[in-house]
Amino acid sequence: MNIIIDAMGGDNAPSEIVKGAVEASNTYDVKITLVGNEQAIRGVAEKNSLDLSKIEIVHTDVVITMEDTATLVVRGKENSSMGIGLNLLKDGGDAFVSAGNTGALHAGSSLIIRKINGIARSGIATIFPFERPMIMMDMGANPTVTANYLEQWAMMCSIYMNKIYHVENPEVGLLNNGTEKTKGTAVMVETYKLLSESNLNFIGNVEAREIPFGACDVMVTDGFTGNIVLKLVEGMGKFMFGELKNMYSKNMATKLSFLAMKASLKQFKKSFDASEHGGAPFLGLNKPVIKAHGSSDAKAIKNAIRQAINYVQSGITQEISAEIEKMKEMKEKKENSKQ
Amino acid sequence: MNIIIDAMGGDNAPSEIVKGAVEASNTYDVKITLVGNEQAIRGVAEKNSLDLSKIEIVHTDVVITMEDTATLVVRGKENSSMGIGLNLLKDGGDAFVSAGNTGALHAGSSLIIRKINGIARSGIATIFPFERPMIMMDMGANPTVTANYLEQWAMMCSIYMNKIYHVENPEVGLLNNGTEKTKGTAVMVETYKLLSESNLNFIGNVEAREIPFGACDVMVTDGFTGNIVLKLVEGMGKFMFGELKNMYSKNMATKLSFLAMKASLKQFKKSFDASEHGGAPFLGLNKPVIKAHGSSDAKAIKNAIRQAINYVQSGITQEISAEIEKMKEMKEKKENSKQ
Repeated sequence: MNIIIDAMGGDNAPSEIVKGAVEASNTYDVKITLVGNEQAIRGVAEKNSLDLSKIEIVHTDVVITMEDTATLVVRGKENSSMGIGLNLLKDGGDAFVSAGNTGALHAGSSLIIRKINGIARSGIATIFPFERPMIMMDMGANPTVTANYLEQWAMMCSIYMNKIYHVENPEVGLLNNGTEKTKGTAVMVETYKLLSESNLNFIGNVEAREIPFGACDVMVTDGFTGNIVLKLVEGMGKFMFGELKNMYSKNMATKLSFLAMKASLKQFKKSFDASEHGGAPFLGLNKPVIKAHGSSDAKAIKNAIRQAINYVQSGITQEISAEIEKMKEMKEKKENSKQ
Repeated sequence: MNIIIDAMGGDNAPSEIVKGAVEASNTYDVKITLVGNEQAIRGVAEKNSLDLSKIEIVHTDVVITMEDTATLVVRGKENSSMGIGLNLLKDGGDAFVSAGNTGALHAGSSLIIRKINGIARSGIATIFPFERPMIMMDMGANPTVTANYLEQWAMMCSIYMNKIYHVENPEVGLLNNGTEKTKGTAVMVETYKLLSESNLNFIGNVEAREIPFGACDVMVTDGFTGNIVLKLVEGMGKFMFGELKNMYSKNMATKLSFLAMKASLKQFKKSFDASEHGGAPFLGLNKPVIKAHGSSDAKAIKNAIRQAINYVQSGITQEISAEIEKMKEMKEKKENSKQ
């Protein structure tokens, strides 16, 4: 198995990426290919006494920045670490991990790796690290959607939760502004109907206030709303912990009282740390692409690589292919019986 | 001034509504009219030794329930406390406060009180009680929107923040999935353009993670997204305080350590309590309607009544009327100069 890594993407590239990749190569029995500036990569290894002997380096000087437009990765900067990485994935690689520009990574993935036959739109999923992990899709790649996209995403996310988290018959919720089936936009009403008629374990509309309380295993929504939810959960967590810190620093008594709570609070904060669960998987593509968080450290990169390996080994892509065929047949049968 | 109150709407009706109304009638120099079951209202007053002498009671046995469809308030249950209340508002009243069914209250308001001339859609605004109070609109009445709605809402919310919170030249943000002006759906891109060209103090797109940190005074979004944000903020707050409670109850040391933090935490929790700021004002109608939270207690009802009085006294409705005319003229001028 060959896992390809964008050594130049993310706030802490290349140092944390290289460190994470080396740790992964020492832990997992897979080939790791680092794409990026060879001199910089070797410099990081030397400085940190890392052994690069098990890692292949593919050199390039070109980098996709956070300011680059999404399509530059296929037109203008094909020779960037992200562009070369995606092409290596297409030509025999097994998975690609990048902490770089999300828009470029998704555009490049769609154009180079391409969608699984029968899938209308690929998208970005995220695992929310609450006590009951929940996968949500889409997180921003598709601001506008159709009911068909959402039904396919629910299917793909259900397979992901089953294969990676071993959840039997994952519960699927549709994020909506009320629980009644008539709630939301016309697309949401139609999606409710499609999901109800599907073979998925659809539990109905779920309201946003239930998100932290383990309402379901899979939540589908349009990429606009998904992005708002992701960032609001992040912002609220940051806000609450910031306020707590202020309260604890108030005086000697509060500072002392912190000692009793330190361990619990640290554990609780960790449960907000998405990097514990690796990166955001792109679903619907012919091969796995994992978007690691932009601020990923070595541990987060190592976790994203582990996630990529699990993705490949568990056969998610093949299962999605098989399932999309089944869905197609089921719909044709229904159409025929109507006539 | 005559403030009309739906005595039968909300989880704690009629007792908390009656108590809040009596407190308001003792504090503010306005006439209060309670609409609802007279016997029940008098029963609450007797049990709590409340003086109803300054309050007018309009009797009805009919109540709009949470399960009732929105339009029942104008067709089938016109004689409900909500239906009668809205008609009293139309026929000479100054403001209406209800803690009942939000959908019914908005539908009834639009049909009975009607929109201000030139306003495309009325909607529901909410004040987020962070350190820098922020008004957000729409919170669910209009799941799908046009750029024109959003521009008008930004104008109305700016007037509200200026008149009620005395914010000079309120900063307006557009909730979006990125700060670049090309972000979001086609409607969001068009709204960005309209707001940039307007006389409002538009600061650009605002991401959801900035919401708790005082990003702006006014935030506009579609009613679907607004509803998700409102409920997610509520859910995240509940989740964090619930988890903190668990951590503090863990053992004797954590229980003792709570004492040092008790006051700060209580204060912090209060900053999440929307009822401190009254209810959700409906904007764009010919007369003020305030939706108090369904779980309102007497204090929240009293605050919503104070808010209704401020709404009337500050002349928000008249200012919106004048401003919508100005916007119309400005656009006509621009159209003419193009020709």
